[in-house]
Amino acid sequence: MSVCKNVVPRIPHMLHGGDYNPDQWLDRPDVLAEDLRLMKAAGCNVVSLGIFAWTALEPQEGVYRFEWLEDVMTRLFENGVYTILATPSGARPAWMAQQYPEVLRCGPDGRRAAYGSRHNHCPSSPVYREKTTAINRRLAERFGRHPGLALWHVSNEYSGECFCPLCIAAFQQWLQERYGTLEVLNSKWWTAFWSHTYTDWSQIVPPDKCVNALSLNWKRWVTHQTVDFMQNEILPLREITPEIPVTTNLMGTFPGLDYHKFVPVCDVMSWDAYPAYHDRPEDVSLAVQFSFTHDIFRAFKQGKPWLLMESSPSATNWMPVGKLKRPGVHRLTSLQALAHGADSVQYFQWRAGRGAHEKFHGAVVTHDGSGHTRVFRDVAELGQTLGQLDALVGTSIKPAVAVIYDWENRWAIDESSGPRRERKDYLETCVSHYLPFWQRGIPVDVVSMDADISNYSLVIAPMLYMVKPGVTQRLEEFVKNGGNLVATYWSGIVDEDDCCYLGGRPGPLRKLLGIWSEEIDVLYDDEAVPVKFGAILSKEYHGRIFCDLIHAEAAQVLGEYTGEFYAGRPALTVNRFGAGRAFYQAFRGDDAFLDEFYGALAAELKISGPLGTSRLPAGVTLQYRGDAKHNYVFALNFSAEECSVPLDGINLQDVESGECVSGELLLTGHGSRILQVNG
Amino acid sequence: MSVCKNVVPRIPHMLHGGDYNPDQWLDRPDVLAEDLRLMKAAGCNVVSLGIFAWTALEPQEGVYRFEWLEDVMTRLFENGVYTILATPSGARPAWMAQQYPEVLRCGPDGRRAAYGSRHNHCPSSPVYREKTTAINRRLAERFGRHPGLALWHVSNEYSGECFCPLCIAAFQQWLQERYGTLEVLNSKWWTAFWSHTYTDWSQIVPPDKCVNALSLNWKRWVTHQTVDFMQNEILPLREITPEIPVTTNLMGTFPGLDYHKFVPVCDVMSWDAYPAYHDRPEDVSLAVQFSFTHDIFRAFKQGKPWLLMESSPSATNWMPVGKLKRPGVHRLTSLQALAHGADSVQYFQWRAGRGAHEKFHGAVVTHDGSGHTRVFRDVAELGQTLGQLDALVGTSIKPAVAVIYDWENRWAIDESSGPRRERKDYLETCVSHYLPFWQRGIPVDVVSMDADISNYSLVIAPMLYMVKPGVTQRLEEFVKNGGNLVATYWSGIVDEDDCCYLGGRPGPLRKLLGIWSEEIDVLYDDEAVPVKFGAILSKEYHGRIFCDLIHAEAAQVLGEYTGEFYAGRPALTVNRFGAGRAFYQAFRGDDAFLDEFYGALAAELKISGPLGTSRLPAGVTLQYRGDAKHNYVFALNFSAEECSVPLDGINLQDVESGECVSGELLLTGHGSRILQVNG
Amino acid sequence: MSVCKNVVPRIPHMLHGGDYNPDQWLDRPDVLAEDLRLMKAAGCNVVSLGIFAWTALEPQEGVYRFEWLEDVMTRLFENGVYTILATPSGARPAWMAQQYPEVLRCGPDGRRAAYGSRHNHCPSSPVYREKTTAINRRLAERFGRHPGLALWHVSNEYSGECFCPLCIAAFQQWLQERYGTLEVLNSKWWTAFWSHTYTDWSQIVPPDKCVNALSLNWKRWVTHQTVDFMQNEILPLREITPEIPVTTNLMGTFPGLDYHKFVPVCDVMSWDAYPAYHDRPEDVSLAVQFSFTHDIFRAFKQGKPWLLMESSPSATNWMPVGKLKRPGVHRLTSLQALAHGADSVQYFQWRAGRGAHEKFHGAVVTHDGSGHTRVFRDVAELGQTLGQLDALVGTSIKPAVAVIYDWENRWAIDESSGPRRERKDYLETCVSHYLPFWQRGIPVDVVSMDADISNYSLVIAPMLYMVKPGVTQRLEEFVKNGGNLVATYWSGIVDEDDCCYLGGRPGPLRKLLGIWSEEIDVLYDDEAVPVKFGAILSKEYHGRIFCDLIHAEAAQVLGEYTGEFYAGRPALTVNRFGAGRAFYQAFRGDDAFLDEFYGALAAELKISGPLGTSRLPAGVTLQYRGDAKHNYVFALNFSAEECSVPLDGINLQDVESGECVSGELLLTGHGSRILQVNG
Repeated sequence: MSVCKNVVPRIPHMLHGGDYNPDQWLDRPDVLAEDLRLMKAAGCNVVSLGIFAWTALEPQEGVYRFEWLEDVMTRLFENGVYTILATPSGARPAWMAQQYPEVLRCGPDGRRAAYGSRHNHCPSSPVYREKTTAINRRLAERFGRHPGLALWHVSNEYSGECFCPLCIAAFQQWLQERYGTLEVLNSKWWTAFWSHTYTDWSQIVPPDKCVNALSLNWKRWVTHQTVDFMQNEILPLREITPEIPVTTNLMGTFPGLDYHKFVPVCDVMSWDAYPAYHDRPEDVSLAVQFSFTHDIFRAFKQGKPWLLMESSPSATNWMPVGKLKRPGVHRLTSLQALAHGADSVQYFQWRAGRGAHEKFHGAVVTHDGSGHTRVFRDVAELGQTLGQLDALVGTSIKPAVAVIYDWENRWAIDESSGPRRERKDYLETCVSHYLPFWQRGIPVDVVSMDADISNYSLVIAPMLYMVKPGVTQRLEEFVKNGGNLVATYWSGIVDEDDCCYLGGRPGPLRKLLGIWSEEIDVLYDDEAVPVKFGAILSKEYHGRIFCDLIHAEAAQVLGEYTGEFYAGRPALTVNRFGAGRAFYQAFRGDDAFLDEFYGALAAELKISGPLGTSRLPAGVTLQYRGDAKHNYVFALNFSAEECSVPLDGINLQDVESGECVSGELLLTGHGSRILQVNG
Repeated sequence: MSVCKNVVPRIPHMLHGGDYNPDQWLDRPDVLAEDLRLMKAAGCNVVSLGIFAWTALEPQEGVYRFEWLEDVMTRLFENGVYTILATPSGARPAWMAQQYPEVLRCGPDGRRAAYGSRHNHCPSSPVYREKTTAINRRLAERFGRHPGLALWHVSNEYSGECFCPLCIAAFQQWLQERYGTLEVLNSKWWTAFWSHTYTDWSQIVPPDKCVNALSLNWKRWVTHQTVDFMQNEILPLREITPEIPVTTNLMGTFPGLDYHKFVPVCDVMSWDAYPAYHDRPEDVSLAVQFSFTHDIFRAFKQGKPWLLMESSPSATNWMPVGKLKRPGVHRLTSLQALAHGADSVQYFQWRAGRGAHEKFHGAVVTHDGSGHTRVFRDVAELGQTLGQLDALVGTSIKPAVAVIYDWENRWAIDESSGPRRERKDYLETCVSHYLPFWQRGIPVDVVSMDADISNYSLVIAPMLYMVKPGVTQRLEEFVKNGGNLVATYWSGIVDEDDCCYLGGRPGPLRKLLGIWSEEIDVLYDDEAVPVKFGAILSKEYHGRIFCDLIHAEAAQVLGEYTGEFYAGRPALTVNRFGAGRAFYQAFRGDDAFLDEFYGALAAELKISGPLGTSRLPAGVTLQYRGDAKHNYVFALNFSAEECSVPLDGINLQDVESGECVSGELLLTGHGSRILQVNG
Repeated sequence: MSVCKNVVPRIPHMLHGGDYNPDQWLDRPDVLAEDLRLMKAAGCNVVSLGIFAWTALEPQEGVYRFEWLEDVMTRLFENGVYTILATPSGARPAWMAQQYPEVLRCGPDGRRAAYGSRHNHCPSSPVYREKTTAINRRLAERFGRHPGLALWHVSNEYSGECFCPLCIAAFQQWLQERYGTLEVLNSKWWTAFWSHTYTDWSQIVPPDKCVNALSLNWKRWVTHQTVDFMQNEILPLREITPEIPVTTNLMGTFPGLDYHKFVPVCDVMSWDAYPAYHDRPEDVSLAVQFSFTHDIFRAFKQGKPWLLMESSPSATNWMPVGKLKRPGVHRLTSLQALAHGADSVQYFQWRAGRGAHEKFHGAVVTHDGSGHTRVFRDVAELGQTLGQLDALVGTSIKPAVAVIYDWENRWAIDESSGPRRERKDYLETCVSHYLPFWQRGIPVDVVSMDADISNYSLVIAPMLYMVKPGVTQRLEEFVKNGGNLVATYWSGIVDEDDCCYLGGRPGPLRKLLGIWSEEIDVLYDDEAVPVKFGAILSKEYHGRIFCDLIHAEAAQVLGEYTGEFYAGRPALTVNRFGAGRAFYQAFRGDDAFLDEFYGALAAELKISGPLGTSRLPAGVTLQYRGDAKHNYVFALNFSAEECSVPLDGINLQDVESGECVSGELLLTGHGSRILQVNG
């Protein structure tokens, strides 16, 4: 296991704290004093300040008011609480929107938005870039040497897009740099379609959905411009405080931005996770999705711990049903993040504001103002637990399995018209291939198609529709060297500009997979085609939604359709290629199929979790984390039922109670335990 | 019982008539003549004229054509038919929209609407205000002394909002008058949230949904400006015809305008009711809603009768299914209005127009043109009945029970994000607390939270989320003096600017209710939490959607949750406060719970209907109305089944047939009877 | 049977081919060469060229590049493939949109669309009209004498509307020509409603939905202007190549344009049909809809054959589920078109493009590029079949039955508010009256209400809501002379301006039908009213959705309602009028009712299909087609089940195999056979 250092150098502990808005309470010094007392009681060591405080910091253009912030930071630090200091670009002052309308976004129809809400600045506006740099510079100058400053929190949940003339011009300029000539662009984008051939760069306007390559590159540019905006924000921070790390809080698998592009810009990755484990049938599948996403964040920097920047200590205000967290759930959610590599548990929000849109969002301290609530006690108890986990800080894991989940592939699949409108479900499919490992406690990395995969034993690439340059080579190399690859239907269809490969699907992967896909059937939701396997799988399963009609070329047939007009055609194949193997699942299988398939494969490849390769009780996962000296196992039960996990001779020790656990591991409903492996 | 005079002084009878558009038939004198004959045959004594006749009255700017109207009014009057004369502002002429685009509204995006439809004028436009005043003045001058003029019908179904620069400036000006300084506004609106602190009044733009206080005050201003527009319209009417009363036809519980603000401006309240009793399972709950709304209108002016200004004599054209009225339903609907205090039955429309959007709306006279239709006969028979009810005119009722239903509270609940998105259902909840009384024939007033409640025995305030200044005091006073108050979950949360009360919910009501609400659980639609009661209720019931987690402080616990992690926590409490009691329902109970709870309370408080406090047969209600001399009971059966109501020794007399009724009261399916209490 | 000549004079065969876009492959001469080889292998004799090739043909304003097209046309012709040459107006070059924004449409809000997509030109723009005429003239000059030119394909799937100032002015001008004076328009449109009386033509703005006559005439004008635009496009074609016929590819029953207005402008009618026979329960009803639509196209020019201009050889990319065509389905679909009078089977598309919106649409040649696919084989086999059908070319049929389906009637029914919002279903109702004939193999024409009906025996006019001038006369004449007419509820309501007839429904049809409709009940979806018949029908049926409450005047009652408050009222009547009869179905009956009713009527009138008047097996139809010399029967099985049709002594011969068929006709699942009647 790898050994990492703590990602926030000034805090050698698990971070515990949350978003804090003292700027909403400046006329209430009693409240601020009480906050200090309560933070101590809750075991907090960090807060995020100033996220939406721009008007409080710069009430008039060029007039800065930093005294209140200095006062708060200092008093916090004196009380053992570090500051994650935000740049305020997430919401601009009303005066700025009024004076410089260009800072506001335009919609797809070119209309400028009115002032309001948040996260709606134009990423290209020179004025806005200048204003953000100016205030960031002042913040860095004023607080850069403050001993309480632990981390920069740049802006907040970047998102959205702007169609103003500045953005459109910047997009066209970016295209010019990317493609060089219009001839190249017209050819790669296949613009002869519907007479779209461009004869001038200025003719390329973003909202035209009929040229998929245009939509796709617009999305790429939105990411590009957002990262560029962020880099502009960071300039004074890096210059003045090179030793203070930088992050920005992301949003899991948010489809609007390709988060891989933020990795080089951030010193540490962080995200805001709001799982709703509500004693509902969907809780377990929700838990798997969140584990999957946590593993994306752990894999972003090759295993380096990340930060849970926001989570709710209680309910949320924006979900359809803002149900209360059941007993044990707050701890369970928090330990789930730690289990997958987080070095923090942070909340939105420390104290509930009295008015406006988020006044009913969960908070550690509610309008009640006291610490005498169930929620506060849950938080304080977790604070105690986190205080015992210093040895865990900075540790990680190196999985043998990777699932490829790729933002650009998702965009391309979703933007393309056909072969079905609904249920293409790329993300959901990736999660379904991840699930069999989660159910066995086998660690998995979730990576993009551009990742270095040479160190894994098993790589799973569901629906690899787009195959970008270099990908085929890396996959072939991986298999040639003994790796195991699993690919599926709807793969190898297009290149990086959503232009179809000629010469028979799966295009560049045809040689590696040893099959030819002649055509692909898609089914109605209520239809299923039976699939039979030889020796390798015990049962008959069913193909749903997608059934690829393939011919085995070099590959060996492991299963075949037994229904529809394509009965007898291959449904599952394996191709030996060099020292490795490349599997092809021609059909979309359900969870039971994937479970048997990957269970057998894991057993064969001896890829195991803390307790081998058997399935754990439903809703339970175990996750390793540790380093050379420490060997932690997080046991997490996402069901409401008490359950017992047979330990098969393994001895564990409960980190909190010190209790030795052997024979079986008991977990209460929603129970979560931190264990160490002994010997 | 109170004694009132007839609300339309010139007509000492029940009004019977409807909207009439002779301006559509000016080239058909034969049709106009036939109308006079048919009105007589139908027992009509009133019509509403000129509602959309602006172009007919002023075909060119400043050129007025009143001859046709004078002729019609005179001939009607000669035939015993009075005129309710409309001001024509509901729809402006095309020439005006073309010449003065400012009379048209702008949408939230600032775009000016094209000419078309109706009810889409800017309420701030000086031009439109001048044009409406000008024509209203001419109408008053010309027709003010006409003996047939009975009432002014100002505009039509005011609704909608405008986002033009004039409106936005007027809104900002109104805010300035309301708050005085930006410091006060920023503080009360909690604008530090998302950096919204305003530094100039002109920065406050209405479509910004993230500051709830802004949305709320925008809605207040829309009401303010609409009332102001109406007052401007009325100026010449009041000046020239001070003796002619003024009304405007409202739309029940229409959420767009706070109708309480129209009460001081109108001499008599009126509304347009279109219940769809279609032999469907929902008929009874629809009937309860309409009774509830009728009772709002009766309570607007402390029991003074109101006018049913529009109803359909047959089908409507705008409902999803414009089913025909079943036999008896027209009479039933009409008597329901009378039972709840209406002094009229009026139709939209007398004669169906041949073209355009409403040509298939029900009418007394259809395209057939004859009186030989089922619909015409139903109307004519009702006309005969109304002719026997002169003694009922101007009478009313003084209920002992009030339900608080408040427009601003509804806005605030709906605009706020959390704790659930759907099913907050404030209006539906108020109706569900009204239902147990309706099922017993116990009269109820429906009032705002600003009402004087000192004369009631029982006040029910469901979901009193917003507590405006003075409310706590009035409620405490009411209970202290022996009153009984019932409050529920989601009460005492915010002040009049949607700013949360600090110090523990239910905020200012905590003392009166004697409880502390620590947090509130919301459930998914399919979830329920069992609740058990001690001696006071016989059965176990269930909490749904909302389950408040409270601590009894001064209050006594009457029921508790028996499920979920809060089993054992109080679910129903009562707090003795002075000479009275304050109940708190912590959970949303279903109809069965509310029925048993209020049935027991009514019995204990001896609040009864004509036949005591027992439940009437399903779908049946009895409603009192009368004065010192007359004591009417309306018996209304909204089910399609015949039924019998046991009379328990009470003797009634059928007003129409003269028949004495004792032992049991028979009602046919959809039957309705008017009875007098003897002795 | 009628004898017609081949509709494309240069090709005395069944056309077989499809849309071909060599302009997308100009840098791949190998691909173009391979296409020629594959077309020959597939038995293709025609392609459509240049549909979206404007930028390839005119890359810069006034600079034309026709060489590539000439080269392709010539090489195709040398290989036996004719060209259907398109005018390129379906999608304009980006340079044109940039330089002349007026060529782009405005939306209902007046905003100009950005460049993008297709089919979005302004039909009034002088610039666009000039540009289309200019390129069309050059195309005609250059290719008019090319021996491979077979047909002009003008633009593509005309659709949509534009609200720019030019269009609005043109609309107002058109109204002025249509109505003469505003007095007439105001009266006919009933504009006094909501004070809409216009005092200047410029006040009439299209998006105002409250005056139905305005919406209706706007739709008429959109058709008018589109036809006018097409006529402008055709001018140079007609002038330079008078011998080359002209068509434009339409879209079945597309509601946006009244296709009857295109009939005089086109030399041959054509449409793009994409039935999705997917082994689903709805397959058979889909087949009936497509047969119905095919019969509209055959009837457009009184039986003259039409062209199937587009169809998918495989899946589509734009359906919710783009399922593959099952074995046999491609042949079945294609023969269905032929059976109903098509003289072609053409595809969209010959070769799949690599990129953009339609890259996953089915094509004869896929990205694979080979002819070794199931789809290619299906196409090639069909090519062989078509090659045997020269004798069928130009033949047709003269049905004895007509169903009236009228675009303007549909618009008027849909635009009107009431008596129900959903399920008015005019089109679906017409198809349901067509179904009983389809199930018996009885040929039917589908015609507008303006058609000459004098030669039919039976005319069915479902929901003849609008009765335009001349219609009553034609219907009365038809019945007087011995014809049989079937009319239904919701008939005779309005005139051509959607203005209600006075004097009792069904207005002008009252005399002919001998009934008076007093009022009309509409039911909720789950409601039904039983209807009983005397001797004429065996069973009880149910009225749903619409139940007309009529009085029999001259008519005889054949059935009556037995439920609801109108039990005993007539539900089905017949009126003897002159030598014929006029039936009235007062209720909406289901398929079973219509089947028994029309089955009995067909038997009585001796209107039979190839095998008499009995119902064929479910999902099977037979369709005649032929001339004096040849007598073809197409047997089509739309179910997946094998079935047998008893032949009752008729002897048939299989055209392809030469096999004699007697006793019974066997059809495999999705099977289709072409037979000739012997003797």
